[in-house]
Amino acid sequence: VPKLKPQELEARRLEIIAAARACFLRNGFHQTTTDQICKEASITPGGLYHYFRGKDDIITAVIEHTTQQTVAKLRAAAEEPDDIGSAFRELAQFLFTTMRDPDIDNIVRLDMEVWVEGLKNEKLAKISRESWGIRRQVLERFIRRSIDEGLYQPGVVEEKAFAGLLMAILIGLRVGKLVWKEDFDLNGAMRMLFMMQSGRLSTTLPPLEVPPK
Amino acid sequence: VPKLKPQELEARRLEIIAAARACFLRNGFHQTTTDQICKEASITPGGLYHYFRGKDDIITAVIEHTTQQTVAKLRAAAEEPDDIGSAFRELAQFLFTTMRDPDIDNIVRLDMEVWVEGLKNEKLAKISRESWGIRRQVLERFIRRSIDEGLYQPGVVEEKAFAGLLMAILIGLRVGKLVWKEDFDLNGAMRMLFMMQSGRLSTTLPPLEVPPK
Repeated sequence: VPKLKPQELEARRLEIIAAARACFLRNGFHQTTTDQICKEASITPGGLYHYFRGKDDIITAVIEHTTQQTVAKLRAAAEEPDDIGSAFRELAQFLFTTMRDPDIDNIVRLDMEVWVEGLKNEKLAKISRESWGIRRQVLERFIRRSIDEGLYQPGVVEEKAFAGLLMAILIGLRVGKLVWKEDFDLNGAMRMLFMMQSGRLSTTLPPLEVPPK
Repeated sequence: VPKLKPQELEARRLEIIAAARACFLRNGFHQTTTDQICKEASITPGGLYHYFRGKDDIITAVIEHTTQQTVAKLRAAAEEPDDIGSAFRELAQFLFTTMRDPDIDNIVRLDMEVWVEGLKNEKLAKISRESWGIRRQVLERFIRRSIDEGLYQPGVVEEKAFAGLLMAILIGLRVGKLVWKEDFDLNGAMRMLFMMQSGRLSTTLPPLEVPPK
């Protein structure tokens, strides 16, 4: 490996991460070999080893990098300074952009592979949990702000629980789209979600309670 | 294989399905061998082959059998004859029972393995899609009944889209519980879901629209 300046090393590292992500999205985590990543990144196996010790290290870097990028966009939407109404619309827009990404099915396939792999690899599971935890915290702060600005009922809306529900719904929509294919009306489901969250499904529904465990 | 009457054959088949399901839940789909299933079901490989041609055939039977049982319970709750309010409470109870099943994490792990496997095995993907489709149809009929009985707003609530959303939420809660572990407040998320669906999050939220694709 030729001597590189720190910023050159970092730029090369990011190129390898981008190449690896492209391979994982195209062929899945298990089907991708480090040889394919080397070819995609135009690097030798020895060169790759200088940056990453193996596939687990690479997928960790891919998850961390994707999370940073996603969280930056999510934060920009949720922390939209003008007013909370614009922030709501920006977050909705973020949802549409994410769900309509041409790569979304491959992204969700990779998520599912990482979840399954994480069931027997606690280090990977931890990285994956953290990456979702960081997204959830942005939503928590947004919900807190919505309560403070009078949009959500204080004492009813619990920011951590509600952020967790929203993350679960996001996951469910993504999995539904990938797994149920044309059986799943994604646009209709998002329409119903917006109707539900703004309380427009019904004027007469009785409350239901979650019994203690 | 000794000569068995049709009802004996069917009883033995159900025993094998139960044994296979126990193996799949314990060790996952990929880790389970047909030898383990034979041992669990006290049958020889030749005997097993008389009922199923291989692991794909067995997992198909397990999915179909589980779906039948789940749908029977779901239908009993959703078609609760007395009044729609009781049916709502019965369905909520069904959700709690499902999410608090001691085996739930293993059940969801198996679901995820089947989804990932289904991405390269269209026959398995079809069985999996159908099994969720049958559940969704029960919810669709329940939502139709709720509209007819005046609980949901006609013209706002679309039964297929709303049933799809509810299925996606169910999937998201299950995956969240398995993957996010103690980071995920399942009870809190269910509480927020009930608040959301009965319109209690807010009195002032503006409606959001899903833009055309």
